[in-house]
Parts: sequence; C-alpha cells; structure tokens
Amino acid sequence: MSVRVAVDAMGGDHAPLEIVKGAVLAARDYNIPIQLVGKLEKIRAELGKYNIKGLDIDLVRADEVIGMDEAPGSALRKKKNASIVVAVEQVAKGNSQALVAAGSTGAAMAASLFGLGRLPNIDRPAIGVLLPTMDRHVLMLDAGANSACEPEMLYQFAIMGSSFCSQVLGVENPRVGILNIGGEQGKGNPLVQQTYKILEEKQETLNFIGNVEGREMFMGYCDVVVCDGFVGNVTLKVTEGVAKMVLELFKSEVNKSLLAKIGALIAKPALMNMKKRTDSDEYGGALLLGIKGTCVIGHGSSKAYAIKNAIKLAKEAVEKDVNGKISRLYELSKHE
Amino acid sequence: MSVRVAVDAMGGDHAPLEIVKGAVLAARDYNIPIQLVGKLEKIRAELGKYNIKGLDIDLVRADEVIGMDEAPGSALRKKKNASIVVAVEQVAKGNSQALVAAGSTGAAMAASLFGLGRLPNIDRPAIGVLLPTMDRHVLMLDAGANSACEPEMLYQFAIMGSSFCSQVLGVENPRVGILNIGGEQGKGNPLVQQTYKILEEKQETLNFIGNVEGREMFMGYCDVVVCDGFVGNVTLKVTEGVAKMVLELFKSEVNKSLLAKIGALIAKPALMNMKKRTDSDEYGGALLLGIKGTCVIGHGSSKAYAIKNAIKLAKEAVEKDVNGKISRLYELSKHE
Repeated sequence: MSVRVAVDAMGGDHAPLEIVKGAVLAARDYNIPIQLVGKLEKIRAELGKYNIKGLDIDLVRADEVIGMDEAPGSALRKKKNASIVVAVEQVAKGNSQALVAAGSTGAAMAASLFGLGRLPNIDRPAIGVLLPTMDRHVLMLDAGANSACEPEMLYQFAIMGSSFCSQVLGVENPRVGILNIGGEQGKGNPLVQQTYKILEEKQETLNFIGNVEGREMFMGYCDVVVCDGFVGNVTLKVTEGVAKMVLELFKSEVNKSLLAKIGALIAKPALMNMKKRTDSDEYGGALLLGIKGTCVIGHGSSKAYAIKNAIKLAKEAVEKDVNGKISRLYELSKHE
Repeated sequence: MSVRVAVDAMGGDHAPLEIVKGAVLAARDYNIPIQLVGKLEKIRAELGKYNIKGLDIDLVRADEVIGMDEAPGSALRKKKNASIVVAVEQVAKGNSQALVAAGSTGAAMAASLFGLGRLPNIDRPAIGVLLPTMDRHVLMLDAGANSACEPEMLYQFAIMGSSFCSQVLGVENPRVGILNIGGEQGKGNPLVQQTYKILEEKQETLNFIGNVEGREMFMGYCDVVVCDGFVGNVTLKVTEGVAKMVLELFKSEVNKSLLAKIGALIAKPALMNMKKRTDSDEYGGALLLGIKGTCVIGHGSSKAYAIKNAIKLAKEAVEKDVNGKISRLYELSKHE
C-alpha cells in the first residue's frame, strides 16, 4: 500500500517556508507522496524554489489558518476552511492515509477527533512524545491532550504507547512505567495509585515494570511512561527548559575566559553530538494516539528537517499498522 | 538572639560521617551553636577526627534511627527515641531554635508536624526547593509534601514562598507564578484554574505574575512558583534527571575522541562553574515551610558542604523571622 501524507502547510512558526521545504525533502529522500494543504499561491511560491520534477506532491486549497493563540473549539467552528480542517478531511476521505501538522496542537487534536473519530475502546486520544534518555528514548504520554485523567485512561495510554513502541520503534516487549514520585506501590496521588492496580493485572499483555521517578526515566529505565496530560506537559517543558538552561549556562561560563572558549571549540563536535541526541527534531514530532487515523504533530518551531522526519514517522505508523495493533492489544488485555 | 541548630546526625546516606563533619564546619566557619542528635558513641567517634576546641557543639542521645525506606507514620509510632524525633523535641523545648535533617523527608515532616505543630492559618506544610535558573534561582513549592492539594493550599504556599524569598533571599517584592501548561488564564486543570482566581485577588500583598510554564521557569521569569506536591516532586526529579543526563551524554561523547577530551579538559573550569550554578548543595537543602518552627531538610545524599549550608540556611530563617512574616502577610492578604 502506498501511503500518502497530508501536510498542513500553514501551521507552525515557520510556515509555509519550512513546511514546504520539509515536504519536498520527504518526497525526494523517502519517495513519499504528499498533499500540501493551504493557501495555494503561498505554497506555489515556496515550491517554486525547488526542482520538484518527478515528485508526487499535490496541492489542496484551504484559505483560512488557525493561529497558535486561538481557542481550538471556537476557531474550528468559525473557520470551516482552515488548513488543518481540510488536511484532516483529506485523510477522512481516503485521499491521504496520514496527517502532519505543526500548528496549534489543540486545533490539530480537535480537528482530528471531530474529523476522524476515536479508535474503538479509547476514551480520549493522547499526545505521545519521545524524550531523550541515556539509553535511547522513552515515549511519554499523555504530553498535554488531557489535563485531567481517569485511571482507565492511563491504562489506555499504556496500551497505545506499548503498541507504538513495538510496532514503529521496534522495541521488543516495551517496558511500561507510571510516572510517579516514588518507586513503591502506594506512592503518589489517587490517580497513579489506582492506575498501578489496573496495570498490575495486565501483566500478560503489558510489560508493566511499576512506578518510575523523573530521574530514572532519563536513565532509560523504561520504554513507555504514562501520566496525566498536566504532569506530562509540565515534564515535557521542564525537560526542554533544563536542557536549554544547562547549555546556556555552559556557554555563558565559557564566554568568560579565552582559554575556555578554545577548549569548547575543540570539544564542539562532542557538544554537537550531545545536542543531537537530545534534539526533538530527530523524532520529527509528537504523536496523536487513539485517533481513527494517523496524525503526527510537529513542534510549533519545526524547521524543514523536523517536518521531513515527521512525515517519515507518519508513513511508518500507517505501514506498521499501529492502530490495528492498539485494538488487538486492547482486546487481548480485556480477557486477562 | 543566639540561634542554636539541632542536627539529626543519623539521617542521610552518609550519616553520621558527613553530617558530623558538616556540623563541625558550620560551628567553625559561621560560629553557630549546634546540638548533634543520635547515637553518642558513633557521633563521638566522628567528632574525634576534628579539633573542636572552642566550638559550641552539644550531644543529645537518641538510640534509634528511621530508615529511608520506612513508612513515616508507623516508624514514628514505633521508634519514640528516633534521632529525628529527639531532634524535633530539642526545638519544641526551646533548646534549639531550628532543625536540620537529611534522612527520610516524610519522617522529618511528620515528626515536625506532630512535635511543633502548624503555623496559624496554614492547612498543610509544604516543602520548598530552590531550583537553578539562568538568572539566579526560583523557589518551588510544594516539592512533595502534599500529593493532592486544594486551591487554598496553593495560595498559602504562595504566601510562605513569598515570605521566605523576601526575608531570607533578600528578593524585593518576589514575583509569584503558578506552574501551569500554558500562559493564559483558564489553562490547566481545575486546581490551577481556581488558584489563579484566588491569587489574582491578592495582588496587593502578593506580586502575582500569572501562569508560568516549565521552560520559562528556568529562564528566571519568577522568584516563587507554586504547584501541588505531585507536580512539584516530578518537576524536581525531572530537573535533576535532565541535568545529569545532559552532562553524562556530553561526557560519553567526549570520551569517543582524544581531541574532544583535550578540549573538555581545557574548558573544564567553565564546566565546573556551570555545574556549581546548578548544584543543589549550594542551597544546602529544602525548606519545610508552614511549621511552627524552622526546619531544613537536606538531600539524602548530602555531604558535609551541603550540611554546612543547610545549617546556615536554618539559622538565617530564624534570625530573619520567616514565620513571623508568613503570619503577617497572611493577615494582610485576608483584608484585601
């Protein structure tokens, strides 16, 4: 099956410039058919910069754009012709099999939810993000779709995360943990205490390893970590904030001495490799899991390289049938 | 007023060795009178290593110890003669004016709560920690004392944090924020939404600046940030985990090349300064705020330098009357 990816060309801080460029790269490097959705004249102006002969890139018109600051619900009601809405429609109609969007996360989620619906048995979709660890990375969900959660939802997140991890990332029998403030059972708030009890009973279908603390998560103790969207979003932003602060503090200390500047220059390749290992652009974007369809949400600051990787990720999620696996795993776990 | 500090000599991973050493340093460098509480023969064996002539160090006998893994409640019921309990008693009796403990945080908190009681108007004590920022640091509370909170509690945390920040850290009119997943009012879960409404009405006594996200917190956007103890504890551990991971990844990349090793060696002073700026030992410990008394809780891994700083912090909190200021600020804010 050939997988076509619909890309919201107007979403993100650097749209359409970097989005169109990323789409061209994905079409060229990975031979992925693409639909670019947005204002045609703007997309054409960007496409004109590249030699796209032989590339399978279609344009789909959408004259409105939902900004990052707009409340998703009312924006979707008002702007029926927004690029994110039309991009979702392309997937709903079967013209594309997956969606990539780097604009408002809330709008992408709401548009997908209304346009494509939820997977059976899934109460609410979740945003999954890959965080760097000493080892490889850990898939954390929910990273912000649901600021209040029930234990049953965290169990569904575990199913979705485990499926994605094994299917797309090729992790065998992914280790699933609950993000908590202590290792022992009984630690934490009622939500995680009750989630512990549910996951403990699903050991045959989920490789549940118990509670995981923030420190251990980054040491690579597990492959999937579940939490409510408030805790997950705070964790995501704290992770970005601390990594940035450490590098900035180092830079400011280096700038105080010529000798240190020389040392840092010599060690720069190592520093760059380290930065690359913690760089979210390598993963291309967050995943909207639990939607009847495939949706990758790029960081608002995504540049072409991140968009290219997001498109590749979206294609792989379809080809490896993540959603089918989620449903099968859910069925299996029901009978435990 | 001369402030004497009671130190639990048996608490922490490196007790009594590093605790006793830290106490000797504090007595010598800052001329602080100290009570060392614990097993007398063990404390004496450690004290024997130093010249303590002229230092005001008393020993107080306590033959039991509460371990890091014990459930605080039942441990306190069973071990009436635990070092943390006896240390708290010294403060309750007025023999000391402040307490420093590096053992189980839960036990220190429970023992202080039972032995000293709460400040008037404060429902629950909170743990405050100083996190590094690009600028200076931010006081985050609660860092783990209360895994479920009410809006009124977060308002009390704001009062306590603001008081500590102005009195002990000398920050004029400290900027207070709510740790949240978005900047706009209305973002987040019901707890932070309702807390926003309360703090908004207290602008005359609290310098409330609104919601703060994890990224901004580390850029130095505010001086005090309030959150529930679950979110705070996750944030604390994620902060430690990410900082550690970034340094370890850099080290592992450096070790791959001789040239990078040389560069890193030359830049090492800058690296060390950066580490120092993010090092929790500089602050000595976390603060237990809301207790009728002064209590500094050291990290379990505290070494002598951290203990010395924790003792100094405890002394300053008493001298600068943080608790008096908390009560006055609360009274003022009631009349707004």
